[in-house]
This record gives sequence, structure tokens and C-alpha cells, in this order.
Amino acid sequence: MAPHPFDSVLDSEIRLASKLVKDAHAASDKVHFVQIDRLDPPKQDMIKYLEAEKHGAPLPTIPRVLYVYYNTNVSEFNKALVNVTNRHIITKQKLPEGVVGPFLPDDVTDWEDHCMSHPLVLQEVQKLQLPKGYQIRTDPWIYATDDPNEKRSLVQFFMYVLANGGHKESNHYSLPLKFSPVFEAHSKKFVRIDYLPGGFDETITPTGPWQVVQGVEYHPELNGEKVMREPKPLLIQQPEGASFTTEGSKVKWLGWEFRVATSVREGFAVYDGWFKGRQIFYRIALSEMTVPYGDPRAPYHRKQAFDLGDCGFGANGNVLKLGCDCLGVIKYMDGITINSAGEPRTLANTVCMHEQDAGILYKHVNYRTEEAVVARKREFVVQTIATVANYEYILNLKFTNDGIVDIEVRATGILSTMPIDENVSVPWGTTVGPNVMAAYHQHILSFRIDPAVDGHKNSVLYEDTEKMPRSKLNPYGIGFVTKKTFVDNAGYVEQSPFTNRTYKIVNENRLNPITKGPVGYKIMMPAKQMLLADEESFNSKRAAFATQQLWVTKYHDNQLFAAGEFTNQSQTDTGLGEWVKEKEPVRNDDVVVWATLGFTHIPRVEDFPVMPVETHNIHLVPANFFDRNPGLDLPQSSQSFNKSVLVETGAAPKACCKTNL
Amino acid sequence: MAPHPFDSVLDSEIRLASKLVKDAHAASDKVHFVQIDRLDPPKQDMIKYLEAEKHGAPLPTIPRVLYVYYNTNVSEFNKALVNVTNRHIITKQKLPEGVVGPFLPDDVTDWEDHCMSHPLVLQEVQKLQLPKGYQIRTDPWIYATDDPNEKRSLVQFFMYVLANGGHKESNHYSLPLKFSPVFEAHSKKFVRIDYLPGGFDETITPTGPWQVVQGVEYHPELNGEKVMREPKPLLIQQPEGASFTTEGSKVKWLGWEFRVATSVREGFAVYDGWFKGRQIFYRIALSEMTVPYGDPRAPYHRKQAFDLGDCGFGANGNVLKLGCDCLGVIKYMDGITINSAGEPRTLANTVCMHEQDAGILYKHVNYRTEEAVVARKREFVVQTIATVANYEYILNLKFTNDGIVDIEVRATGILSTMPIDENVSVPWGTTVGPNVMAAYHQHILSFRIDPAVDGHKNSVLYEDTEKMPRSKLNPYGIGFVTKKTFVDNAGYVEQSPFTNRTYKIVNENRLNPITKGPVGYKIMMPAKQMLLADEESFNSKRAAFATQQLWVTKYHDNQLFAAGEFTNQSQTDTGLGEWVKEKEPVRNDDVVVWATLGFTHIPRVEDFPVMPVETHNIHLVPANFFDRNPGLDLPQSSQSFNKSVLVETGAAPKACCKTNL
Repeated sequence: MAPHPFDSVLDSEIRLASKLVKDAHAASDKVHFVQIDRLDPPKQDMIKYLEAEKHGAPLPTIPRVLYVYYNTNVSEFNKALVNVTNRHIITKQKLPEGVVGPFLPDDVTDWEDHCMSHPLVLQEVQKLQLPKGYQIRTDPWIYATDDPNEKRSLVQFFMYVLANGGHKESNHYSLPLKFSPVFEAHSKKFVRIDYLPGGFDETITPTGPWQVVQGVEYHPELNGEKVMREPKPLLIQQPEGASFTTEGSKVKWLGWEFRVATSVREGFAVYDGWFKGRQIFYRIALSEMTVPYGDPRAPYHRKQAFDLGDCGFGANGNVLKLGCDCLGVIKYMDGITINSAGEPRTLANTVCMHEQDAGILYKHVNYRTEEAVVARKREFVVQTIATVANYEYILNLKFTNDGIVDIEVRATGILSTMPIDENVSVPWGTTVGPNVMAAYHQHILSFRIDPAVDGHKNSVLYEDTEKMPRSKLNPYGIGFVTKKTFVDNAGYVEQSPFTNRTYKIVNENRLNPITKGPVGYKIMMPAKQMLLADEESFNSKRAAFATQQLWVTKYHDNQLFAAGEFTNQSQTDTGLGEWVKEKEPVRNDDVVVWATLGFTHIPRVEDFPVMPVETHNIHLVPANFFDRNPGLDLPQSSQSFNKSVLVETGAAPKACCKTNL
Repeated sequence: MAPHPFDSVLDSEIRLASKLVKDAHAASDKVHFVQIDRLDPPKQDMIKYLEAEKHGAPLPTIPRVLYVYYNTNVSEFNKALVNVTNRHIITKQKLPEGVVGPFLPDDVTDWEDHCMSHPLVLQEVQKLQLPKGYQIRTDPWIYATDDPNEKRSLVQFFMYVLANGGHKESNHYSLPLKFSPVFEAHSKKFVRIDYLPGGFDETITPTGPWQVVQGVEYHPELNGEKVMREPKPLLIQQPEGASFTTEGSKVKWLGWEFRVATSVREGFAVYDGWFKGRQIFYRIALSEMTVPYGDPRAPYHRKQAFDLGDCGFGANGNVLKLGCDCLGVIKYMDGITINSAGEPRTLANTVCMHEQDAGILYKHVNYRTEEAVVARKREFVVQTIATVANYEYILNLKFTNDGIVDIEVRATGILSTMPIDENVSVPWGTTVGPNVMAAYHQHILSFRIDPAVDGHKNSVLYEDTEKMPRSKLNPYGIGFVTKKTFVDNAGYVEQSPFTNRTYKIVNENRLNPITKGPVGYKIMMPAKQMLLADEESFNSKRAAFATQQLWVTKYHDNQLFAAGEFTNQSQTDTGLGEWVKEKEPVRNDDVVVWATLGFTHIPRVEDFPVMPVETHNIHLVPANFFDRNPGLDLPQSSQSFNKSVLVETGAAPKACCKTNL
């Protein structure tokens, strides 16, 4: 059976695409694959397909098209589009010099080996005079941009000491060194060694003997901690199974229906979302994330990762483990990446899906009768976790039983660190351990929300709450009203927390029977500091999306990534910053909303050596979409259903707790 | 055994206090009790007590003192302080005319009966010519303020139709009427009838026949909904019991220790909080909540509830039911209120405590070895729910296993409604059903945080993140730094989300060994719109706290309530607005932080007839308090501990799920 157009790419499709590309090149071209995934189908075709599917009509054929990024002749970067349904290459082109593609995770390991065995690096290591029991480790780092004339694809290697006799799980991030080799990415040619400052300013010093300090370890075998706070088991038991069903990519859960597909760049995308028989969105996914650092000194000024465009959130997805990453009854989906030969590689269990209780959904007690109505909130979670070198990002798309989509990001993992001399402190970073500093930085994520609020023609507006002036109508000066402003043209909307600015996606063609106004969904997100780098900086030019919290564009096929298709060492943004330039009309049209979730991360010592999650959310909330609380058809919360237990007074639990399951 | 000074008031103490007060009055004074609870002990005495307790030294005696609010001669309002340890009245005074005390929930029912049977009200009801099957209901409403010369204690009665043959659970809020009697609260004298506008402006009309419209019902017996979306059971099972223990008011859970006491005004307060052997706070509680409405028209301009000062969050606390309000292994605490005779009345199960899973706490995968470290976040929840007439507020104080205090408010219940004519819409409200409008309003809550970060001498500062100017040090314009500003004097700090302003409570006498800076906790809360009423309005004068998001005062005994002790019909704030006027020094002193959690509520149709929770949080987060991640001593997340289950492919769950418990 043919895959659904929204299904993830198949192994066989990857094999076919890479074969067709390889066959189109001479062996001497040395094809080296970097990334392969399917494209989204053209939306106009897909709308017809979904309509037909909905009405049980014959389904139109939509060819599956894959994009293929690959290198030839070591350092040329190419892109091909392959129709795997009809088994032919649609286009194939060598990209202009200076366009740098994403890196394949496998390549990173090769670079490490190369750097660590390079004579000039070994010579530098020699100067450290490392005592016995210490080794060296390197983290290759995307080089970013500071020179418009730089056309080479470069990699910066940050160097660290690995303590504890080279224990593989020792936390090298705790012991950063002060030199940093730069190599060409593809040819692996040595370029130079950068030296890192350790003091108050940009002064650097030549490499000398390493001053032994104690690293801060996170691994249970090394961190010197005993498990002192042992919680009692807390089990999520679903004796009748899950409330959701899946069939291929299709998920159904308590009134929600949508499809989930893994994506090597985005982690996953969710398509064709409906709740209680009404259409809500066409597609939601993380679109880009940039992580610029605030340490102004070379070479740190180039620390601006683009974790989707530079390397791929899905390609770096974790293999999730039952009982470790999610509780309850779990459905896993595999992802697919490739190796440099163009062979598919399964990323087992890279997406997990489960439901969870989220407290009370609604409650009211009639004080006259003491009669209570109460229902519980439940969430369906689509989760993926990406490890991007030091950092982990947990991405949860949560659907609630009252029609909310809660986009949640939890940042965890290990801070990116810099060396710092004893007794030095700097205003752009936190000392998090002996001789180790974590620079202030920002995590700025763009979520692409392609809405379909009761259909594809939608408008975006923002609503400000404003004081009324005193008047005959408002004699006591307490009145306030909302003011709506429609977004007529592609562009951004500024934040305005003090007017309670609320963004809404509405369908002006569908009126709510109660309010008589357009049906809609609102976007709730706190006002946040956006990109701090100055306007003329490369950081800003490369990531226009990160300068504003909400963007609106007209829908165009293949406009998926907020900073553009190729971010690696980019000089300028080819995404949102470009797409809004023509100010296309976006009212009552097929629009896309780009919500920027940003947080400035001023590291705490507590974030080291591994960071407790910092959680941020964007909520899409029905706002005059339904004609009443959409949760009224949920059952009342009851003890016969929930089976709670009274705590024992005193420490020892009675056996009844054990058998009360 | 004598109660711990932080323990909730005892039945016997209430009986004694009310007896002593009653005995001090002639029977002809007609003592009518309104509120009785214990006062907090003087802090200086209490610090000595806690020190002695900590070191096992003999405990000093701290007398238990109760405050007693009561009326005499129908309308005089009095306050007494009673030492119940030594069994004597400390002070007793009649409060000045114009000071209105809180209302006893019992009185509300009396008022209802009185209003509903008053001839002038019945006469008005007559004019409605209600068809068979409809009845009348009234909600007494705190009158608030609009006249400096008004010294009487008044109550405004909003009138509603009760449909469905007078079914007791019918949602009268759906069918508001256009007249509103006003009575004197104590004497129950009729004052007048206000008429409510139904159109675009303040025009009112005399009462005429009621136009029959369909109400919007929430009760399962009436709402016409079938349970269409039946979730499968999701049980929180703790086969070895809870991870917490309680002994009286003392709670211990995974490194946390504190005491919980119910409070008739605040719901509950948490005292003497320690985590991992270090002191964090002296006391945390909700301090006040004001709910001003934005409909400018009389009499709605007087809709400004003070839910703590006017009636009491604890006095209106719900009786929580096992398996309905919280899942898992539950510990309940009872609250105590009184009746007008001064007899204690138990509010059974008004506080529940339990723990819950909160997803991943930290994770890191070493991409070289694919070795993952992952621990789970767990929360200990202290929950109470108050029903304040139409609205419900769920107050959760959540303690996490990484040292965070998460103050969470969930607003639910029923919108306060106004009549609106057909085909009218107004810019200060949402039409939520036929002829019923819910005015825009704000919920502004003050949380009083009395910190003790490694001791009682603390300082408050705020930290802004700012761009660095370009310079030799910052040649690429990407640098950014933080700037600290200490709060030297009592007052407020403005919000500044675009500089990522973060508030910190630090102890300048205790340096973090890693950062060499003061240890601290940060307060994380999104910037929010504060009180919208204009500066000259009574709304602002009565609730200075609601105009700013963060306040700092020097600690003084009995300064607990942000809008002052008596808020009912107050003309002016006697709380924070007053206390900061002297600008007392607050640096490195015993300080109190008041965090304002506010949200402007623009009702959605979905918020009716009962509102899905809207959730808001303030987080207190260790920030350079510990010398590393304080969660490293937690066990790794494992399947052997968590016992998750793979979902069945296909709809029917296999038996294994059932027996896998």
C-alpha cells in the first residue's frame, strides 16, 4: 500500500533516491550524502486529497518527492529533488560556493578523530603536560560567520580535558582548554589554531602546562553523590489501555485527530489537526532554533548555532527508552536518517506518544447545595528529544481534552563552557565550576503554525486591552475595552504585554453563533526578550526571525524554515526576513503564523554539570471557536474511576495500598 | 501537648476565644461573630523558638493569640485579640464607622432569604411575568465603593432566573436579570433597586416581562451533553506509599521540610521552608486577590472583589473529595471556620497534599557512547480550592525535587455575568450565551513571600540583560551582559520584559563557593498587564498592590495582607500602598517580597457555562544557591522503577495490560 502523503519517509524511498542520485554521477564524483528526507506535498494537491479522503472519494495520486543533500568532489554541495513514486530525478544542482549544507552526525566523529590525531594539535596538547589519568576530548562546533569573503566550510574544535582516567562519561565540558583548532570541514585541511581568553578581556596567552583542577561530574559513577533522596515508585497505570489509537501516522485521541510524521530536520511535524470534528491546523512543527552566545570575544562571537538547519533536530534525535523518558502506556515512532553512503538508518523510538493527567480541567461548586461538578484535564503528548552536542531539547506537543495545543520546550543537558582563570569573573557569563565559565546565551525557537481554523482562509489579528477615558459612560474611570487590529500584510507584530496583547487566528468567513464574530484560536505566549545582538551583527542578519515574537506570511509551498533552507555559515537569512519583504496581503487568505519562543539563559551554578529543565510554552487556545466549553462532554471526575488512596498516618504504608491496584 | 506555634487554630482555642469575648459583652450587645483565626507569632520570638527546636534545646513558650472579628448591636464592627494560652483578652475595640469587616458565609444565605422575600423585590419579580417552570435566584455581591460619604455596610444583590423548573443545579448565571436590589448588610434594611443596562450604553429601562431564552447549563443532568469522549482510566499508583511523611503540620518530602497551616483568610500558609538542609523561606501565602471588572456602567463599576479580605479564601474553601480533586496517595488537612455564635466548624479536607510526576528533570546523552543520564522531576503539591460565589480558584503550592517553589493558580468556575439585549455587543465584554454577557475583568493576586535565604537577612535585586556597545572587546556587536540593581528601600520594581528583568532574593552575607557572589533565589514570572482602572479611581486607591508586579517591604509583624486588613467597601488601601511610604531601608535586612500574579481575563465563549482552567505561575528558583545541580542525588529514571507499558497496536488492549500492574 502506498504511504499516506503525510507519512514519514520510507527506507525504500531513501534507498531509491540515493541510488538514483549516485547513478547520475560518475564514481569519481565521490558522492557523499548529507541529508535525505521527503518534501511536503504541494498544499493545493493535498487539500484535494484530504477532502477526498474525508468523503471516501477516490484518492488522487500525489507523488512522493524527496530532497537529497550531498557533497561531490569532497567540497561541492549539491541538492537534488527526486520523485520516488515515478523513480526519476526532478532537479539536481550544485549549489553556489559559500552555501554550506548541514552536517551529518557521522561526519562529526570523523572530524574528531582527524583533529585529535593532527600533528599540530598533538603538538599543542603536548604543551599542556597533562598528568597521568587525563586525556583530551574535542567537540566540533559549527563555525558560523564573521567574514563575508569566507567561502570555505569550516569547523571549530573546542578542546577539553577528560578527567577520571579518561572515563568515557567524564564531563569534559567542565575542563575547557584555551586553544581551539579550525579545520576545513570537507577536505579536513588544517586552517589555524585560535587561542581563547581566560581573563577579563580579549587577551590571549600561548598554551602552557594545564593547571589541574577538579572537574564537576554528572554521571552517577563519577559525581560523588549518593542517592540520598529516593522517591517511592509512582506508577502511571492504564489497566484498560490507552485512550488513543494509531493507524500508521494517524492518531485519534479524545476528539483529536491528526497525523504525526518524523522529520530529520524538524524532529517531527503534526499534520491535519481536527478537534471534535472541526479543522484547526494544517501543520505544526518546530521551524528553527538559534542559540547565540553573549561572550563578545573571538572566537566566541561565532557561537551561533542553528540546530535545525545546521545539523537537524531529527537527525540528532534520542533513542527513547520505555520507562525512562515517558510514563504510562507508550506508543513509539521511529525516525530515519542516513549515512554518508545514502543508506537509511533507523532512529528507533525517536518520538514517543502517551497521555497524562494534568489536574483539574474545570470545577464549580454550587455553594447553596454543595454540589460539585469537576472534570479532569488530560493531555496527549507527542515528544521528541534531541541532543545537539552538549545541549538537550525536549520538544512536547501537547493536545488537551479542551482543545488546546500546548507547545512545550524543555531545555536540559550541559552548558557550553569556556575556560576562565581563577578569581576572574566576567559580566557575560557565570562561573559554574573551577576555571570554567558558562557564557550567557539565548535559545530562540521559531514554531511554524500553518493554521486551518475551520478551513484554510484565515486572518491574523491582535487584540489590545486598553483603559477607557473617563466620560459619561465611564464616570468612575474603571472601564476597559479591547481593540482589534488585523494584520493585513506579511510582516511581524510587536509585543505589547502591558496592553495584554493577544494574537488570534480567526476565520472571518465563519461566525460564532453566540458572539456573532469570527471563530478563532488565540496564541498565548509571554512577552520575551528577543535577539540581543545588534542590528548590524551577523547574528541578526542570519536570524531575522529571532528579532520578533510573531510573524505572519502568506502560505507558499516549501517555505518551512524560519532562517531559510541553508543556515550553516550563512551570511544572511533566506527565510522570514526575505519572505515578508514583499508585504503580501495576508487577510482572509492561506496564512502561516510563526511564533518565536525565546529565552535568555543566564546560567545558574545549579545548571551545571547537567541542567534541570527550564520549561517554556506557547498555547494555542480556542477563543470563540466553540459555542460553549468543549469539555462538557467529558465524564465527571470520580473516585470509582481514579482510585486514589488515603495516605497512611505514619511512615509505614499498610498492605492495603499494595493490593488496592 | 501544646500545638506548635505554626499549627492551625484549634477548635478549643476558637471556643475559648469566642467565650471570652461573649463574656466580656452584655447579652444585649448581641455579639455576632464573623471571623476567628490565630495570629502569627511575633517573628523575633519565633526565630528563637525555631532555633531551639532545631538544636533540641528547651522550647520557649509562645502564647497562642487569636483575632476575633464580630459585630455588636447589629451593625457595630469589633476586633478583639485573645491570648488563649493565658486565657485573657488582650485588646478589644469597636472599629471606626466605615470600617466594614469580612462577611461570614452563613450570613450570605440569610441575606438571600431576606432579599428574595422582601415585598419590594417580590413586586419587581412580579413584573417579569415569569412563565411556569422558572424561578428566581440571587447572588449577594460585595458592594465595593463609589462614595466617600457612604459609611453603611451594603450588599448588592444580582438577580437571575433559575430555569429547568427550578432545578437546584440549573445555571442561573446564564440568565441575569436587569434589576439589582441593594440592602444594608447587617440591619438588612432595603436601600434601593438599581437597574442594569442591556444595550450599548448606560441607558436603563424599567422592569418588564422577561424574554424567555435558553440558558446554558453546565450540570451533567442539564447540559444536554452525552459523555462522548470517555477516556480510559489513568491511575496514579504508589504501591509503596507516598514519599512524604507528615507529623502534625510538619511535612517532609525528598529533602524539603516545612509546615502547612490552614488559614481562614488565606486558605493556607506554608512556614519555615528548608531544602536539603538549607533555609529558603519563613512563610509563603496568598495575601490578597482583587477582581475588578471593566464594564464602566453603574452599578458594575462597583464590581471589585477582594476575595481574601472581603470573605476569606479559607472560609470559602472546598471540601475536597478523594479521587475527584487529586490523584494518587493523598493527605488531607481540615480547615476551621466559625458560625455566628462563635462555634468552630470543620472544613473537612480543605487542603490536600500529594506528589506527582512532572516529566523529565534532566537528561544528557553522550553522543559518543550513547550513554544517557536521565532523572525525573517530581512535585509535592499543597492544594486548596475556594469557591467565591461564581468563581473557583485552585491554589497549588508545588515544591519540586530540584528546589523550586512553583506557585500556581488555576482559575475556573463560572463567569460573573450581565444581561445584554439581543443583537447588542459591547467592547468591554463577550456575549457568552443568549442575552448574557461576561464583562472583561482582571484577576490580580498578591503572593506574600517572606524569604529566609540562608537566614533572615536578605536583599532583593533585579538583573537586566543588556546589549554591549561595540568596542574593541565587542567588535562584532553580539555581546551582552547583566546589570544588577539592588532595591535599597521599600517600594516596587517596575517590569521590564525586554531587558529580561529577573528578580532575585539574595543573602549578601553568604557567598556561593563557585560564583563568589551572594547565594540567592530568583523569582520568575512573566510580565503582565497590571490594574487597568485609572489612577484616580477607587479601584486603584483600594488596591495599590495591583498596580505593580513586585514589591519589597521591611518585615513587620502583622503586615500580611497586600490591600490592608479591612478591604470590604474600603476607600483606600491600608496595605502595601501605605507600608512603602516611608521607604524603609530593605537591604541586607529582614525583607518581604510581594509578587503580583495578574491576568486580564477577556472571556471566551468556551469559558461558559463553566470555565476550563486558565493557569498562571510564579516560580521561585535557586539561582547560585547550591554549588551544583541539586538533583544529582536523585536516582536515574529506569523501567524497573517506572514500569511503563508499550501500547498495543490496534484498538483492543490485550489482557497483559490489565495484569501488568
